Amino acid sequence: MIDALIKGIQQKSNPTVVGLDPRLSFIPTFIKEEAFGKFGKTPKGAAEAFYQFNKGIIDAVHDLVPAVKPQVAMYEQYGAVGIGAYINTIEYAKEKGLVIIGDIKRGDIATTAEAYSDGHLGEVDIEDEKYMVYDEDSITINPYLGYDSVEPYISNCKKFNRGLFILVKTSNPNSGEIQDLEVEGEKLYKRVGRLVNKWGSELIGESGYSQIGAVVGATHSAQAEELREIMPNNYFLVPGYGAQGAKAKDLKVCFNKDGLGAIVNSSRGIIAAYKNSNYTERQYAEAAREAVIEMQRDLKSVL
Amino acid sequence: MIDALIKGIQQKSNPTVVGLDPRLSFIPTFIKEEAFGKFGKTPKGAAEAFYQFNKGIIDAVHDLVPAVKPQVAMYEQYGAVGIGAYINTIEYAKEKGLVIIGDIKRGDIATTAEAYSDGHLGEVDIEDEKYMVYDEDSITINPYLGYDSVEPYISNCKKFNRGLFILVKTSNPNSGEIQDLEVEGEKLYKRVGRLVNKWGSELIGESGYSQIGAVVGATHSAQAEELREIMPNNYFLVPGYGAQGAKAKDLKVCFNKDGLGAIVNSSRGIIAAYKNSNYTERQYAEAAREAVIEMQRDLKSVL
Repeated sequence: MIDALIKGIQQKSNPTVVGLDPRLSFIPTFIKEEAFGKFGKTPKGAAEAFYQFNKGIIDAVHDLVPAVKPQVAMYEQYGAVGIGAYINTIEYAKEKGLVIIGDIKRGDIATTAEAYSDGHLGEVDIEDEKYMVYDEDSITINPYLGYDSVEPYISNCKKFNRGLFILVKTSNPNSGEIQDLEVEGEKLYKRVGRLVNKWGSELIGESGYSQIGAVVGATHSAQAEELREIMPNNYFLVPGYGAQGAKAKDLKVCFNKDGLGAIVNSSRGIIAAYKNSNYTERQYAEAAREAVIEMQRDLKSVL
Repeated sequence: MIDALIKGIQQKSNPTVVGLDPRLSFIPTFIKEEAFGKFGKTPKGAAEAFYQFNKGIIDAVHDLVPAVKPQVAMYEQYGAVGIGAYINTIEYAKEKGLVIIGDIKRGDIATTAEAYSDGHLGEVDIEDEKYMVYDEDSITINPYLGYDSVEPYISNCKKFNRGLFILVKTSNPNSGEIQDLEVEGEKLYKRVGRLVNKWGSELIGESGYSQIGAVVGATHSAQAEELREIMPNNYFLVPGYGAQGAKAKDLKVCFNKDGLGAIVNSSRGIIAAYKNSNYTERQYAEAAREAVIEMQRDLKSVL
């Protein structure tokens, strides 16, 4: 995963991942009318609208960015049909050559973690018939339960060439409430960063980076700098750019001297870009494309 | 939620929740044959087998226990059809008067947390049409991201009379790796316990207990005792009994002097009880019923 991601970043000269976090308020009227016309104002209608919307975005940006990050919560809220739209979105994005980061933030133990891992990263075994159900290239997970909650994912990362981004320091205002607590002489997020570095040490790709990366919020730039030092060979998935307030200059510290080491997410700022522009609703995909180009330029100006 | 749960515990004289964590290896052949006969050895076949299996368990135990706890990972691994079986299981269990604890362990921020919360505890709004999609009475969540990741659930707990069980000290062997770190003079899990107690203080039910409870593993009985003191009015959801090694005597410390304060989960030990008994596969539900009665007796012996 990590080598393919880095290759994409280098070929497209763009360390940007587009967050596919649709909300109904982002979806242009013509897409909603068609979906609700077919399926009513139902979860199925909403899921169909999300999928059609995503296809337009993916078509418009797939040659410019290496990866997309669908946020499963947005789909999961609509039940089975929502999960269907999530899986269809992944399949469509993969056909277009994009690396998938499934933003699922799961965290559980033993056979439960195995079930998540087999479904999302590996394959499920139904009386010897094997199925790759979600087929993400990588997912985000939560470290609070400790190594035995992480190991089932690592094992599928090895077997299926997949990756992880483990929550270390998140971008939200209250992230410090637990993550910034002082533990034995340093902040908890640093301790978690050291653990992630250790867990990832046996999965280093040809690029020199590990399949096991970290989620490090761009809104906390001093902390990101410390983590960059502790975790030199773990890729950072960086949320917080744009709508959440982080600027390109805050992001510089997330990168290594080789210009690699981080991929920056923007969701709303790209997929709903038409709302703050001269584009019409029907041009939402063109607006997204322009927003990606602008973000690329912005990131390049500091790297 | 919490008052209904306590009423159920008192009426049935049983602080047991049955974990509905099916695995194909637990499902009797006659159920699998019927499901795979209809849908093939596919995710749809597996999901159908889970649902039929669960119905048998629910029929056999619903008059003995107050609640069931479906573990979403087991269903989610099969994609959309799995989530369908999860939702159908919840619906069936509610028809039988059971309180639902959705074991989903979600944790995310801002609009993402809202999407999880609306889907699972509240209602989703599709152009003014409202749907309760999962309709769990309560769910488990992860605290690592801090209060703003919890608040969207608390808001729906108030609005829809729902509950939460927040991970504080989990039952797995490596749970101490992060949860037992020393933070500012005490272990992290104690700090998280204090936070949960604070977060829950504005949602106290008529019973005197809060809608906001905690997951506290029975495998760490000394820690459970400390947490019981810190969180007198937060209900404990206690995993680890039976298959994970905790005994009834280890559980006593999870309860308050009023005999309330904890609900103990058993999954495998109940739903796959027929495997370690004189029952046949076709009698899996009777075996589950007997296992519940035995567990009830075991818990009563120490309370």
